[in-house]
Amino acid sequence: MSKIEQFHSYREKMNQKILSCGHLGMTRFFNLDAAAYREGALPVKTLELLGLVASTVLRCNECITYHLIKCKDAGVTREEFYDALNVAVIVGGSITIPHIRHAFEILGELLPE
Amino acid sequence: MSKIEQFHSYREKMNQKILSCGHLGMTRFFNLDAAAYREGALPVKTLELLGLVASTVLRCNECITYHLIKCKDAGVTREEFYDALNVAVIVGGSITIPHIRHAFEILGELLPE
Amino acid sequence: MSKIEQFHSYREKMNQKILSCGHLGMTRFFNLDAAAYREGALPVKTLELLGLVASTVLRCNECITYHLIKCKDAGVTREEFYDALNVAVIVGGSITIPHIRHAFEILGELLPE
Amino acid sequence: MSKIEQFHSYREKMNQKILSCGHLGMTRFFNLDAAAYREGALPVKTLELLGLVASTVLRCNECITYHLIKCKDAGVTREEFYDALNVAVIVGGSITIPHIRHAFEILGELLPE
Amino acid sequence: MSKIEQFHSYREKMNQKILSCGHLGMTRFFNLDAAAYREGALPVKTLELLGLVASTVLRCNECITYHLIKCKDAGVTREEFYDALNVAVIVGGSITIPHIRHAFEILGELLPE
Amino acid sequence: MSKIEQFHSYREKMNQKILSCGHLGMTRFFNLDAAAYREGALPVKTLELLGLVASTVLRCNECITYHLIKCKDAGVTREEFYDALNVAVIVGGSITIPHIRHAFEILGELLPE
Repeated sequence: MSKIEQFHSYREKMNQKILSCGHLGMTRFFNLDAAAYREGALPVKTLELLGLVASTVLRCNECITYHLIKCKDAGVTREEFYDALNVAVIVGGSITIPHIRHAFEILGELLPE
Repeated sequence: MSKIEQFHSYREKMNQKILSCGHLGMTRFFNLDAAAYREGALPVKTLELLGLVASTVLRCNECITYHLIKCKDAGVTREEFYDALNVAVIVGGSITIPHIRHAFEILGELLPE
Repeated sequence: MSKIEQFHSYREKMNQKILSCGHLGMTRFFNLDAAAYREGALPVKTLELLGLVASTVLRCNECITYHLIKCKDAGVTREEFYDALNVAVIVGGSITIPHIRHAFEILGELLPE
Repeated sequence: MSKIEQFHSYREKMNQKILSCGHLGMTRFFNLDAAAYREGALPVKTLELLGLVASTVLRCNECITYHLIKCKDAGVTREEFYDALNVAVIVGGSITIPHIRHAFEILGELLPE
Repeated sequence: MSKIEQFHSYREKMNQKILSCGHLGMTRFFNLDAAAYREGALPVKTLELLGLVASTVLRCNECITYHLIKCKDAGVTREEFYDALNVAVIVGGSITIPHIRHAFEILGELLPE
Repeated sequence: MSKIEQFHSYREKMNQKILSCGHLGMTRFFNLDAAAYREGALPVKTLELLGLVASTVLRCNECITYHLIKCKDAGVTREEFYDALNVAVIVGGSITIPHIRHAFEILGELLPE
């Protein structure tokens, strides 16, 4: 199973458990989270790039994987990914480099050469 | 003096001191930082929005002020600012709210109604 | 004006602006935020202490001020405050000490001797 | 071996090495850390919930596992866990969601249905 | 009153309050904190530089001021300060730049030209 | 394969991909990162210790592994490592303890008894 498939399968299973636990606050937060990336004044592509860079400077590999996939679905190109990850590494410094490595590994699956 | 003017004047004065201290590593990092927001595969407007959201989730008011100004110069509209700050508050949680307040205060100067 | 009054007045004014900006995502997040501290399986006092310690380890003075006030309203005593802040300083380390100083300054207003 | 057993066995082995290295500062910090969760003005249950929420907003899975176990030992119920994790996700935002997934996985072992 | 004098006076006053509150955990942590910078296998100068860089990447101006003063007392030179702050800005990224500005302002008081 | 060998092999492979992606900003940042640890006013040993403590308080295991290896190459002794890690745990608090465990595991490979 690829890294992306593993991510999807674990995420799906655990989100199911969280959403079925019956806590209204958490369910509503999950809905708000999904809504934040729907087209508004900004297009989905920009919103997802914002999610990707936020996830990278906050150094969360699972969130990076998620937004890389969503970005690709929204049409982000290879060169655009590099520009966005470059902003992340400049803002967040060398401590983000291990997460840039992770991003490049996922990009290797998403955009095979 | 407005908050934005205070920010500019302090930033200008101190950056001068840093850049004239003669440390090559720091000078080069400042150059790389500036270069990260120049048009490449992504337009300046998107790059500055990435800088704004990264600064908000990392909770730095000076960086927020800087990127709000740069975003406005790049043509970001009021509604686009709200969408971007909304992504930041969803990713970063209620701990970012004081910085959203700061952003709205600066926006009050930048985009008077 | 005391530190607590300044905090209230700025917070009130800026929250007003955020909530009247018309962005549904942000309004809903503010509602969820308020709801998280309403009595559920855990009493308000415990929920507010959780908010206080989370704010302290994440090092946000405005959030600390807010939850100190709410904790006091919920009946947290001086000795209970010290126990909670001690957990924060042990989890978060000496980098939280300036925020412990801030908390003691606010406690000086809230619980005068 | 379950996730909880793996956690215990690795933690036990490595803490042993740290505590036997002979550095007085570290030994004393480990003692202070343990003492912070002993009953004082606040009961153990509240102290452990504070540790759990602090660990979640700071996004450390090992610390989350540890405090989930301690909370359960102190009598925290399923619904109380959900309320505490909800505070964490509201304060810390969507970047904490992968850690909420981790918490639900551990809760699945601790509180089987 | 200079920035450094303001810092000393506020810090002194509030530490007094914290240490006289009677919470054993906090008193002991303050002692451990002081002990961490006393000469051991590493000299005071190196320990204080470690404290300075840790404070800068964690972005706490009060902690930066404190360790700049202690570093100067331990004989750190202007060029050594620049090398240490450069490590901080590379590890922590552009989000640390406002704290580098703060450090240079304090250095202007500590090491007048 | 040991933990250190795994680290080297993954790091080598992914850095290759990043550096060959053709993004000038990232290449230059990698160069600046390497340059920050070359002897200047401070010796390599001190610079690497600064990198180690910064990595520990920012809680990045891969960065910790990297700087432990570099520190050892620069002649850092067992007792000096303990002093530096003690500063990290005091500044960063108990949330860094899982990373201190990781550091001791790597030290077990680097400095076998």
